Amino acid sequence: MLTGIPVSSGISIAPAVHLTHAQPIAQPLIVTPVNTARELELFHQSVERTREQLEQLREQTNQQLGPEKAAILSAHLAFLEDPAFVGEMQTQMESQSASAAAAVQQVADQFISLFESMDDDYMRERADDIRDVSRRLVRNLSGEDASVSFPEEPFILVAGDITPSETLQLPIQNVRGIVTAKGGSTSHAAILARSLGIPAIMGVGEQLLVEVESGRLLILDGTTGKLYVEPDSDTLSRYQEKAALETAERQAYAAMKDLPAETLDGHRVHLLANMAVPEETDALVESGIEGIGLFRSEFLFMDRSSLPDEEEQFQAYKRVAAAFGDKPVIIRTLDAGGDKHLPALALAQEENPFLGFRAIRISLARPALFRVQLRALLRASAFGRLLIMFPMISHLEQLRGAKAMLEQAKAELRSEGISFDEDIAVGMMMEIPGACLQADAFAKEVQFFSIGTNDLVQYTLAVDRMNAEIADLYSYYHPAVLRLISSVIDASHRAGIWTGLCGEMAGDPLATQLLLGLGLDEFSGAASVMPKVKERIRQATLEQAKQLAEHALTLSTVEDVVQFLKDKTE
Amino acid sequence: MLTGIPVSSGISIAPAVHLTHAQPIAQPLIVTPVNTARELELFHQSVERTREQLEQLREQTNQQLGPEKAAILSAHLAFLEDPAFVGEMQTQMESQSASAAAAVQQVADQFISLFESMDDDYMRERADDIRDVSRRLVRNLSGEDASVSFPEEPFILVAGDITPSETLQLPIQNVRGIVTAKGGSTSHAAILARSLGIPAIMGVGEQLLVEVESGRLLILDGTTGKLYVEPDSDTLSRYQEKAALETAERQAYAAMKDLPAETLDGHRVHLLANMAVPEETDALVESGIEGIGLFRSEFLFMDRSSLPDEEEQFQAYKRVAAAFGDKPVIIRTLDAGGDKHLPALALAQEENPFLGFRAIRISLARPALFRVQLRALLRASAFGRLLIMFPMISHLEQLRGAKAMLEQAKAELRSEGISFDEDIAVGMMMEIPGACLQADAFAKEVQFFSIGTNDLVQYTLAVDRMNAEIADLYSYYHPAVLRLISSVIDASHRAGIWTGLCGEMAGDPLATQLLLGLGLDEFSGAASVMPKVKERIRQATLEQAKQLAEHALTLSTVEDVVQFLKDKTE
Repeated sequence: MLTGIPVSSGISIAPAVHLTHAQPIAQPLIVTPVNTARELELFHQSVERTREQLEQLREQTNQQLGPEKAAILSAHLAFLEDPAFVGEMQTQMESQSASAAAAVQQVADQFISLFESMDDDYMRERADDIRDVSRRLVRNLSGEDASVSFPEEPFILVAGDITPSETLQLPIQNVRGIVTAKGGSTSHAAILARSLGIPAIMGVGEQLLVEVESGRLLILDGTTGKLYVEPDSDTLSRYQEKAALETAERQAYAAMKDLPAETLDGHRVHLLANMAVPEETDALVESGIEGIGLFRSEFLFMDRSSLPDEEEQFQAYKRVAAAFGDKPVIIRTLDAGGDKHLPALALAQEENPFLGFRAIRISLARPALFRVQLRALLRASAFGRLLIMFPMISHLEQLRGAKAMLEQAKAELRSEGISFDEDIAVGMMMEIPGACLQADAFAKEVQFFSIGTNDLVQYTLAVDRMNAEIADLYSYYHPAVLRLISSVIDASHRAGIWTGLCGEMAGDPLATQLLLGLGLDEFSGAASVMPKVKERIRQATLEQAKQLAEHALTLSTVEDVVQFLKDKTE
Repeated sequence: MLTGIPVSSGISIAPAVHLTHAQPIAQPLIVTPVNTARELELFHQSVERTREQLEQLREQTNQQLGPEKAAILSAHLAFLEDPAFVGEMQTQMESQSASAAAAVQQVADQFISLFESMDDDYMRERADDIRDVSRRLVRNLSGEDASVSFPEEPFILVAGDITPSETLQLPIQNVRGIVTAKGGSTSHAAILARSLGIPAIMGVGEQLLVEVESGRLLILDGTTGKLYVEPDSDTLSRYQEKAALETAERQAYAAMKDLPAETLDGHRVHLLANMAVPEETDALVESGIEGIGLFRSEFLFMDRSSLPDEEEQFQAYKRVAAAFGDKPVIIRTLDAGGDKHLPALALAQEENPFLGFRAIRISLARPALFRVQLRALLRASAFGRLLIMFPMISHLEQLRGAKAMLEQAKAELRSEGISFDEDIAVGMMMEIPGACLQADAFAKEVQFFSIGTNDLVQYTLAVDRMNAEIADLYSYYHPAVLRLISSVIDASHRAGIWTGLCGEMAGDPLATQLLLGLGLDEFSGAASVMPKVKERIRQATLEQAKQLAEHALTLSTVEDVVQFLKDKTE
């Protein structure tokens, strides 16, 4: 058994298939004469063929996954046209009589180690692009088919790592699981795996590639991070049972798909889903979810060096809004900074990025950038039921500033004769303690709140949620966090507006009755966990939930709260 | 006129005196034969003489400033005994026929650039030690007197930078101001300047050394960062007037020294001072301050690679406690981490140190370290009125854990027959929103609160106070911060305990009546600003202040609060 970082939950049982990359060309021990003219010819053919493949893949990606993913392939094409890259390979062939394959490998290795040594995250990530392009060049040199091929049967993908362009070529319908030697839960492949509901484990270590050959039967447990290779019959039957239970649970939830999220005594709340990447749209629409509680627009800005223009943003927002029809889609304006590195913004390094220049702070400081996003959002609002939400608001002046810019964008569109939803709702994240404490004042100036517990817990308890050393202090069950949530909901109801919650807490079934009792109107979490939340709601009465919440607010430690909730609801 | 970073306020008018360092030895253009035997002899004499000087200085520093400062000189002596340092110089003389001066300079330069290129702050700071030791070696080689000499008249010190050992040799009684080309407000020299009330400007840039010669008349404005060189008569008379006003103000405050901090209607509060370094003790005792509201024990742990043992800590705490007699001295247990780099603790680098492993979190995770400090504090409590305060408490379990360790230390001392104050008061910082929101629960388990607005504002508003990009968002006048302060004070009074405030806000006269009206019992700020606070208190009535605070709590923006306070109190 091997173990890695569990990045996408679920159990999968299927044979392993290696994602094979072209191997580095070993330097021959005996130097055989190289026909330089021939090598140059092969090289130019390979460059040409690589260009054609990338252009075709870009076109296909653009249609299927949208322009933001296609941009990854533009970055690869740019390397093919860079004289410092291709030209240097040619020079090595001419001046050192290197074979084409050796020249590609040597120059690629130089660039990779150069980029990897850089301080800047964005530049370091470019090393992956070079790895990707050079593998393709080598494959095309050898006449090997450079497009990765996979069996027609279900399988678990085994790889050292997966580059963005490889991710885009996976036959998603047959990929039952993904396991990689490198990577972690924030890699592009991990995000995609979660979005698509494919169980995945990453960061298993290099022994993965040695110990797991193609064709071996694997059990992948994406919840615990365990990977069994050729399991014994006991383990296999145990996991087959588990997997069957999971399937049964999914079917039970599917049967609940069209039932409302309503308590036994008839109190109705709304269950929405968080959305990381637009690729999830179709699956989410089919899941029967009531809408999108949080669409993170920063994913449009990631993995690229230029900003998406108004048209590109408009198309991305419109696609999601239109897909959901009259169901709400809450799009959060750019939440850059913090742990989200967006190279196109060229932000400075900070001592404490979570307490730094991020989200609405950036948008207000760079009105040209913000204006483009607001115009694109407004234009998309004509095609569905779109709501705008501002992140990281701590001062009333910020909310007023953002709303003023929105009004200005509306005025522009009106004068240009472009239609948009004149009644578009505006809300704000409640993720900074200062805003929660002043919820009464904010409630008068928005149509809704969405409590972001992930950040709110960080600030309320002064605990970086990424810092393993103090992980035991991070909990949304801390009495102070519960008090803030309660006071935000109460303030919103006094002002006649509604409150949602879009942190991890919304998808935690242990918290469901508590949040219900505190008066929460809308829950938004990962789509995969919301059926469990619905089940909890349909089993409860509002009256019981209120009593539960009232008592929970009197408790003074995390342990007491958790124990109480377990006693009462499990 | 030159400008720099204002690091210690006040106006000073006096002639410039350069702190001259030995100049780097230029490599001679014509190589003259070197008598290696003679150079080696000179070199050994210089090493010996340097060692004697440093030992003498260490002895003197230990007596006058205590062991923690003397440790700096031990670090210098360690280099003199390091074969990689002194031995390498000798090798250069022997194998390359280098002169002693050239060898010292070359080896020192190599080590300095090596240490400066390191990632670790502590190692980088060691470059200063090497600079210091090698300057001394070169001076002693040339027969020049290596102890820096200064005039007997008042002067403003002008320097590129000041090393710790140079700082320790300054004739404080004649230094009217300090201006340096390098450095900033957190350098050792800056902290000392503020403690001693010497106006200072740092980071002026290299032109300082070129444009300001010794003997030139300077006006140094440590409040604005302006430095006038040979000012015209208008500027001079304007600043003489300002300086006279400052002096008059100081005298007026001195006249108030023994008057109580009491409102016109007889409500008494307490004005205490924050203390950064033990060197301030005598000046503070004389100032008539009512005690120490915050003694930052981490200064005992800075600038050194080993931890202070129980005896050293005991002596340091005892010295301060004893000096204040029956006046309270609140000592905060170690607040390491965050922006306070303590090399002896070998803490890991963190993404967000302000939200990381710091203060009580470290103390509880390293009980051996914490036990030594608690024992030293208890032992010192027998010699004055010492109170213990825990920093960065966010969870009730942390407070209970810290108190349990304190009880254990008491039990140990009892069984060892060592006396301490059995009734020693225990309090906690209120600097994390989560603790403030749960103040009612905490109030039952401590004898006092001290609100730390510097950190509290950071967390409540999610704004790093060191981050210039978002400095406009940082304010303790934010309505949410005022609400937290108000609720903490109210909770403490309901439980029959008292609340102090030890952030910058306590020393801001604009905030005085507001805090008074919110019910604050104790104000603790820089001793230099507390007379202004006392004046404000003596001019107010509690009744008016309460009305003022009540209204301020209804305002919704920082600007509204500040404008209202200015209208009402200035």
